[in-house]
Amino acid sequence: MLGDGLTRRAFGCQNMVTLQDENGTTVMRRTAEYSPRRSWRTWLFGRPLSTADAPHQTIGKAVGLAVFASDALSSTAYATQEILIVLATVGTLAFGYAFPISIAIVALLAVVTISYEQTIHAYPGGGGAYIVARDNLGELPAQTAGAALLTDYILTVAVSVSSGVAQLASAYPSLFPFRVLIALGMVLVIMVINLRGVKESGITFAIPTYLFLVMMFLTVGTAFFRYLTGTLGTVVDPPELEVAHTALAVTPFIILHAFSSGTTALTGVEAISNGIPAFREPRSRNAGITLIWMSAILGVLFLGITYLSGRIGAIPSEQETVISQLARTAYQSRGLLYLITISATTVILIMAANTSFADFPRLSALVAADGFLPRQLTYRGSRLVYSRGIVTLAIIASLLIVLFRASVTALIPLYAIGVFLSFTLSQAGMGRRWWKIGHLAPGQEKKETGSTLRFEPGWKPKMAINGFGALCTAVVMVVFAVTKFRDGAWIILVLVPVLIISFLAIHRHYRDLARHLSLEDYGSPARVARHRVVLPISGVHRGTLAALRYAHSLSEDITAVHVSIDPAEAEKLQRKWEQWGDGVRLVILNSPYRQLLEPLLGYIEDLANQRQHNETITIVVPQFVPRRWWHNLLHTQTAILLRLALLFKRGIVITDVPYQLE
Amino acid sequence: MLGDGLTRRAFGCQNMVTLQDENGTTVMRRTAEYSPRRSWRTWLFGRPLSTADAPHQTIGKAVGLAVFASDALSSTAYATQEILIVLATVGTLAFGYAFPISIAIVALLAVVTISYEQTIHAYPGGGGAYIVARDNLGELPAQTAGAALLTDYILTVAVSVSSGVAQLASAYPSLFPFRVLIALGMVLVIMVINLRGVKESGITFAIPTYLFLVMMFLTVGTAFFRYLTGTLGTVVDPPELEVAHTALAVTPFIILHAFSSGTTALTGVEAISNGIPAFREPRSRNAGITLIWMSAILGVLFLGITYLSGRIGAIPSEQETVISQLARTAYQSRGLLYLITISATTVILIMAANTSFADFPRLSALVAADGFLPRQLTYRGSRLVYSRGIVTLAIIASLLIVLFRASVTALIPLYAIGVFLSFTLSQAGMGRRWWKIGHLAPGQEKKETGSTLRFEPGWKPKMAINGFGALCTAVVMVVFAVTKFRDGAWIILVLVPVLIISFLAIHRHYRDLARHLSLEDYGSPARVARHRVVLPISGVHRGTLAALRYAHSLSEDITAVHVSIDPAEAEKLQRKWEQWGDGVRLVILNSPYRQLLEPLLGYIEDLANQRQHNETITIVVPQFVPRRWWHNLLHTQTAILLRLALLFKRGIVITDVPYQLE
Repeated sequence: MLGDGLTRRAFGCQNMVTLQDENGTTVMRRTAEYSPRRSWRTWLFGRPLSTADAPHQTIGKAVGLAVFASDALSSTAYATQEILIVLATVGTLAFGYAFPISIAIVALLAVVTISYEQTIHAYPGGGGAYIVARDNLGELPAQTAGAALLTDYILTVAVSVSSGVAQLASAYPSLFPFRVLIALGMVLVIMVINLRGVKESGITFAIPTYLFLVMMFLTVGTAFFRYLTGTLGTVVDPPELEVAHTALAVTPFIILHAFSSGTTALTGVEAISNGIPAFREPRSRNAGITLIWMSAILGVLFLGITYLSGRIGAIPSEQETVISQLARTAYQSRGLLYLITISATTVILIMAANTSFADFPRLSALVAADGFLPRQLTYRGSRLVYSRGIVTLAIIASLLIVLFRASVTALIPLYAIGVFLSFTLSQAGMGRRWWKIGHLAPGQEKKETGSTLRFEPGWKPKMAINGFGALCTAVVMVVFAVTKFRDGAWIILVLVPVLIISFLAIHRHYRDLARHLSLEDYGSPARVARHRVVLPISGVHRGTLAALRYAHSLSEDITAVHVSIDPAEAEKLQRKWEQWGDGVRLVILNSPYRQLLEPLLGYIEDLANQRQHNETITIVVPQFVPRRWWHNLLHTQTAILLRLALLFKRGIVITDVPYQLE
Repeated sequence: MLGDGLTRRAFGCQNMVTLQDENGTTVMRRTAEYSPRRSWRTWLFGRPLSTADAPHQTIGKAVGLAVFASDALSSTAYATQEILIVLATVGTLAFGYAFPISIAIVALLAVVTISYEQTIHAYPGGGGAYIVARDNLGELPAQTAGAALLTDYILTVAVSVSSGVAQLASAYPSLFPFRVLIALGMVLVIMVINLRGVKESGITFAIPTYLFLVMMFLTVGTAFFRYLTGTLGTVVDPPELEVAHTALAVTPFIILHAFSSGTTALTGVEAISNGIPAFREPRSRNAGITLIWMSAILGVLFLGITYLSGRIGAIPSEQETVISQLARTAYQSRGLLYLITISATTVILIMAANTSFADFPRLSALVAADGFLPRQLTYRGSRLVYSRGIVTLAIIASLLIVLFRASVTALIPLYAIGVFLSFTLSQAGMGRRWWKIGHLAPGQEKKETGSTLRFEPGWKPKMAINGFGALCTAVVMVVFAVTKFRDGAWIILVLVPVLIISFLAIHRHYRDLARHLSLEDYGSPARVARHRVVLPISGVHRGTLAALRYAHSLSEDITAVHVSIDPAEAEKLQRKWEQWGDGVRLVILNSPYRQLLEPLLGYIEDLANQRQHNETITIVVPQFVPRRWWHNLLHTQTAILLRLALLFKRGIVITDVPYQLE
């Protein structure tokens, strides 16, 4: 609170600090006393938060599981069903292959989990695929991972919300015709909640996640008990099988196709590796243990559900989900336990979508900070969240839901390919990192953007683990792309490269801009030697004279220009100008085709073409500011049109001098 | 081709004239050597016309009838049918009242014609209702006439085109479902033709009008001949009567209602009074004779059609028009003569719509020139037509056609009320004019805007004629408003006052503006005593320095302002500014809520509130001009937002200094 009284009064603010630095430049600091206005936004999103309000909380393992596992665990709600839908093209007899396929998927899950466990320890500051690829593989792989992950987050929202609506419609079939509308409503609600800002902690996450786990284990457990005691039976009144018999026999292609569909169970496994900084110390250890717990639960549930679906003869259908069929067969009714199970499943699916609403804005801000997406994505909104990223995600996900009519089966072929691409890049990056570590001298340290490299003796087996993980996920990705190509995977195979090209184009723009604007090797700029002023006038009145007065304050070299359509009017204007124009030169441009802008532009361009290096031309446009907005419709907006037309001309500055009417 | 060589070279143009006037003000005149570019517009609308190209042709009586009569004559195509539709609510037996009603309408036509004949002689320069009301009744009646006429022109387009489509659909019933689309297509074509510019003369008008007259007289004549020889018969396979029996007996209300519907036959009678200047000398005489001929033909045709419709038992219907029923009964087939009759009717209806496309833009330009509509309506486009008026008319008429599903019967209740309002005002204005003439001294002359008053001895009977005309049309207007109120006339009774209020509001704006801008009693404005410059910067780079350099050319009192969200970045910027900022004062505004614009606005407003009378504040905003438009999405558009926010602050000028990136 220093500063002299004079300065303080002059700027009408209380907290001003004035400093005089060694070069003689005066620097003043002032904190805006702005208290944000209350509006509908305050009501919907909450009061604006100051930057100082950012929370610094950490969470333990149990809450961490609740916060980060919803995406991964919720995939059990649709993975089994998607395997069955592929097998159904051969006929219900092929459903027997579902369980062996799910065992292969769980094996893949184990590989990915061990691989990511190593990543968590290597990147205690957060080791998403983007960061790992950027630090170890370079720009292009990093942007590939970024594009894959952003696509994937969008699809997580679309798939999870659609599956959530499918669960609801299973319990209440009358909702089925409104599923697109309900899904859009859900996305809107999640968006608003995220714009308010969600604290990634606490009871709001723990209750639904654990309720889901309890209900799923209860359902699977009850079903198993009945199965072992021989009272399980099959699904009463199952939905009709809608899939056409298109294949004659079980071929390796069909098996691989079903396997691909099932790998959606792995989506979300990487979530913890992004969120390590949220864990309590020892962060990496806590996060790693949580990851292993999550994978174990996921594997058991997925195997259990798939096995039991086969036993009860569940039929994959858009009308009723496999989870619904399993639950009502286990509980032998659509009673309370059934309804709680379905509700818990719906809620966990919505929470999975919510996870993307945290991840997508965070990753896009990270990519934007690196200069590959518009910088605006790095600004945090009034509630300290990346509002623009949140809104972008909601809009694109909503579009997908509308386009694919909220059908999980239609969306699945687009889904896991991005996930496996990012898995592959992440594991490959880790492999490369171990190789770099192995080639450091013992005790040597090397700092990278995301982590610090230190020599470790046991680097070879660890490199082998990550390398094997990369290989497995790469193979799965190729299998997925080939078997699902015609179902929709081609969209992603086109979209991801397009996104990468866009990222690189944006980066090129920012890099060029920085280079063009750089002050390195920049001599002190020459002063303006000549300043010409052009004053377009349509009449001589107070507004014109205000602009003329302003023009006088800029330069003595002023030319008034009038575009004339009507010779009589030009004559009148000339006489008035002779009286009021202060002796300033007047050019009258006759416009035989009655155009106003073109002759003026031609004149200005002639001037600009003769411009000397140190000469500036300023166009001073008188502009009325009417009292009411609709009055603008009653005037030609010359200033705006001139601005647009002259934007690309060098050395021309356009100033409009507003003349307020009261 | 005067002017010194130097000046000529400096502005790179050939035809420059430089003059030095007595006050020492240099005035240069230059004709833009602009030759308009060829584009799709050239192809669609024709090459731009120079103001010097405006045609000055006049026409004789025969062509005049063709040009101005299409609107009036074409109403015979629907007037009878609309009478029958009202009578049908009582039952087909009531159709007998149609002929007596049509006799009353023709009597009214005679009164209006005689009345307008007098107007034509009084206003040889063109005597539309707007001009007559303006000169004789004052501002409010004139604007009322203007609003009524403009509404009426829009409805003429909607009704005529809809009726034209109904004729087509009678001949080719398969077109019926597409009538709205066909009508919109017709409006579009008429719009484009009018934007090209139609010469109101010649064969293009004469052929269709005379073909229509020939075919109608042939049809009516043939039918009469058959009727007299007893071979006419009734309509074969008539359309079904769609109107519900809602009334029990023929009441006076029903008769007046039917009469109101039939008065649409009078629409267009006023057309000639607008177009007098187009006639060959003696203009008024030629125009008057043409008017009488037109009314005579209209009366005969209307009576004939109505009488014969009763004889053949025509049924009013949206599916088939009465004209179509009459023609196929007269020719006893849907043969060639029938098809020519229907085609000629369709064409004349489209030409009636075309008349409005000449009248609406001309009247709106007239009203705009008086300052009651946006001035832009007075500009003539590249083809010397009032393009904006033409496009406005096409858009509103298209909207009406869509809203009313191209149904003539639905549109009719909106139609004639505006016509009769303008008839009344025009005749009343003429009556007042005779009264003024009667009170002049013999030989005395008085010039008004639209005509010259000279004493005439026989003014009393002439005043009586116009007064009687005004009374008749006023009564018809009230009858129309009452009987058709619920059918849609209320829309016009609401719309016309709303239009009048808008006209007056626009006028008030222009008048206030002129008063505010007037230089009367205006002392020479004081020079700018102090010029403060504020330079908002987000970083220190070449663009910033270009803006700083420009700011130096404006004033020595410069303050750079940076809004800081990130203290570290502010620190960096401060160091760079100390090096590059030329010692210019820097103010750093901390923004705890991460807003960019609000703190800056607060700062500028503080400055503005302390502003002295002769002080100007200029905000110089550095602005990148990227090479590609989409690059703008990658930058915050501070300049635009600042401009919008500061527009209403006095004494603040915003300049953006473009920095072009290459």
